[in-house]
Amino acid sequence: MTGSARPAATASVLERIGAIVGPQGLITDHRDLEPYLADWRGFYHGAALAVARPASSDQVAAVVRICAETSTAIVPQGGNTGMSGAATPPATGGGIVLQLGRMNRILELDALNNTITVEAGCILANIQQAARSAGRLFPLSLGAEGSCLIGGNLATNAGGINVLRYGNARDLTLGLRVVLPDGRVWDGLRGLRKDNTGYDLKQIFIGSEGTLGIITAAVLKLFPVPRTTVTALAAVPAPAAAVDLLSLLRDECGDRISAFEIISRRCVELVLKHIPGTREPLARAHPWYVLAELAEASEGGSLQREFERAMERAGERGLVLDAAIAASGAQREALWRIRETIPEASRVEGLLYRHDVSIPVSRIPDFIVEAGVALEHAHPGARVICFGHLGDGNLHYNVTAPAGLPAAAFVEREMSAVNRIVHDGVARLGGSISAEHGVGQLRREEIRRYKSAAELDLMRAVKRALDPLGIMNPGKVL
Amino acid sequence: MTGSARPAATASVLERIGAIVGPQGLITDHRDLEPYLADWRGFYHGAALAVARPASSDQVAAVVRICAETSTAIVPQGGNTGMSGAATPPATGGGIVLQLGRMNRILELDALNNTITVEAGCILANIQQAARSAGRLFPLSLGAEGSCLIGGNLATNAGGINVLRYGNARDLTLGLRVVLPDGRVWDGLRGLRKDNTGYDLKQIFIGSEGTLGIITAAVLKLFPVPRTTVTALAAVPAPAAAVDLLSLLRDECGDRISAFEIISRRCVELVLKHIPGTREPLARAHPWYVLAELAEASEGGSLQREFERAMERAGERGLVLDAAIAASGAQREALWRIRETIPEASRVEGLLYRHDVSIPVSRIPDFIVEAGVALEHAHPGARVICFGHLGDGNLHYNVTAPAGLPAAAFVEREMSAVNRIVHDGVARLGGSISAEHGVGQLRREEIRRYKSAAELDLMRAVKRALDPLGIMNPGKVL
Repeated sequence: MTGSARPAATASVLERIGAIVGPQGLITDHRDLEPYLADWRGFYHGAALAVARPASSDQVAAVVRICAETSTAIVPQGGNTGMSGAATPPATGGGIVLQLGRMNRILELDALNNTITVEAGCILANIQQAARSAGRLFPLSLGAEGSCLIGGNLATNAGGINVLRYGNARDLTLGLRVVLPDGRVWDGLRGLRKDNTGYDLKQIFIGSEGTLGIITAAVLKLFPVPRTTVTALAAVPAPAAAVDLLSLLRDECGDRISAFEIISRRCVELVLKHIPGTREPLARAHPWYVLAELAEASEGGSLQREFERAMERAGERGLVLDAAIAASGAQREALWRIRETIPEASRVEGLLYRHDVSIPVSRIPDFIVEAGVALEHAHPGARVICFGHLGDGNLHYNVTAPAGLPAAAFVEREMSAVNRIVHDGVARLGGSISAEHGVGQLRREEIRRYKSAAELDLMRAVKRALDPLGIMNPGKVL
Repeated sequence: MTGSARPAATASVLERIGAIVGPQGLITDHRDLEPYLADWRGFYHGAALAVARPASSDQVAAVVRICAETSTAIVPQGGNTGMSGAATPPATGGGIVLQLGRMNRILELDALNNTITVEAGCILANIQQAARSAGRLFPLSLGAEGSCLIGGNLATNAGGINVLRYGNARDLTLGLRVVLPDGRVWDGLRGLRKDNTGYDLKQIFIGSEGTLGIITAAVLKLFPVPRTTVTALAAVPAPAAAVDLLSLLRDECGDRISAFEIISRRCVELVLKHIPGTREPLARAHPWYVLAELAEASEGGSLQREFERAMERAGERGLVLDAAIAASGAQREALWRIRETIPEASRVEGLLYRHDVSIPVSRIPDFIVEAGVALEHAHPGARVICFGHLGDGNLHYNVTAPAGLPAAAFVEREMSAVNRIVHDGVARLGGSISAEHGVGQLRREEIRRYKSAAELDLMRAVKRALDPLGIMNPGKVL
């Protein structure tokens, strides 16, 4: 295509897309485009010819067919709440953003089959609410749930606070409808717990960050609503004690543990400093804390008694130094508030490098020690802000400048070196450098360092097989 | 390749493979080959140049490289306990069977990470036992567990009796090592609950029945050992009452339900007739039964009390007509024996068409009525033997000749027509024609009838991308 031919061809593409999605479904005005061209944290900025907002799978398919014919790149976008820039178009422009927000219908709720069928543009919290109204639980839960769209949750295989018990978004999905890169629709919208009639194609699309197709609808699993919840904050002497406590609790209370979060003392201090209305959770300060939650469907059962007995044993073995068990909903919220405001408190404190890593649970204590020593050696005084989903082996391991040093300068100068220390430590222990935040633009170079040639080749082979034109979210993941 | 060149080339291939796997790893004698060339039920017979039994992933890789160089077909085989002929070589011969049984080491058990790492040739029961010895549960459990190999369980995404609570083999897998069709090794042997660094490649191999690569090792999830178990057989008036009972039990007792099996009166009668030592489980005969099991990790909790209360409510609502709750291990075994000997009792009774179907749980009652009516209309007097994992929406729906008619003649003459009635009924209700038995040779033609062109094309695209030479288990699945 020559330079002079491009505007005419472009106009024609947008006219054709506009004819499909209607005037309210096509955004071309520069000011209106702006919110779709940057991620919510403002780390990534891109360009696009337009934003298309189709209202149905058929409209998505028709738009994709035009893009395939004209080799126009497509960046699928949900609630734009991602952490790795996967939904931000490239700076080079020339493609479209395909935003799913108009496809926000709940198509079916089958309480007896324990499934809910939703369009990709449903807000996560609305799906949770619809399930609740039918006496069921949809357990996917994360910070952005009030604005993220389920299509994005599935495209990134979202995690969150209930993974220990209910799994990631992948584990909660029974069926998908996907518009393929050639504009055909694969209708795998099945509500089956067992189906072994060939390759499980939905798995290929979940977690592929929009690089293989566009998820337009899904059948999701529902669960019994927990009517008894026990929430406790326990002080532990060290991460190893936290791991042993988790093992003891699983032995005694089984898989009713729905959350098991580790929090370092520094996190608690940041929250107390920056978040109004928070207060010291236990009588004394301790080096490490665990926030544990257990839940069961029945009322009036023995869960609380069993948990207290297990905690007594943990105390006798020196695994727990002190603990507070929430006696009311307000107390429960106060404990969770400490955990949930750590990211906000960290932001207020200053710039930091975020790492979202996973490691086998048994090796988390080694990782914390080894990474801490290596960082202190290379960057004396650099402060680690360590917390996360210990039950899943997932740490949010963040690093900020030594006290007194300008944070921005430290971040700019030392980012690569800090990443290297943290990620090398993760790799040595058999871990992953992106547990729940995906690859997007942020970790695209980084995964090449840690994955084998065979693995990268396999990923490329899948990409080529499904998207031979390379129009789906180019520049992301691979 | 000309006809005269083939024997020399063949000899050379086998010599090269023999040099890798050693004399004890290569079977070429016709009598010794025989057990590997037919499935255990004797439905399928094939031919092969040899059986290779490698002792390590590296040996598997070296064998596969030779096969790729010489375009020699490979049929991976585990314990040869499959139901669909996926592990039986084609009658045309010319390829090798690659049997994994020598790779039977448990590589690691990490109790704190709740993972076990095993070679593909481990017998399922040995993995269960290793987990038990470490105070953990590996929940995959099925009839063939004393002889099936975990590699086969993963290649077919095995189901079994604990899927309701713990999921299929896929859900129990965290990592895989796979020898690719070009002989390279993909090492994805990770023990992580969260890893979003690109496409989840293990999902492509699980359930692909050896058509995309050879699984040589796996990291599997472990769970707390249940120390309290409640087992009950309940008579229900109809399948719809069974579905309502499941919903009520989940509301009251949560996801501690580990099995929920439906059994028709005819199944119980067959068991009483053919299986020595069984007896009528309740005071009177009833049209349908449910075998339910609940389990939790703790001892001395309230599970039994909660279950009894729920069953009382079910009785008040007319969902349960009578019930027996096992008061001892012996009573529990007697209840399970009724369920587990149905296949054997059916075999003794005579030939039958087996269907392994799944349907949304809510639509199972419709399916049972509709298929029953359609079969009675087309084949008056044909007897349906209906039982299965109702909690998973999975029925083993078998049909045998009307009383007095020779079974063999009926099967031969009417098989296609019966299949059509059952599978069309399944498809109408959004179900699957193979819930846990896979495709293999048995359902290869049949899936083409029920899958869309887009879905079959996607499967073929994946196959071509990973196995462009088509040497991996040709003639299976696709």
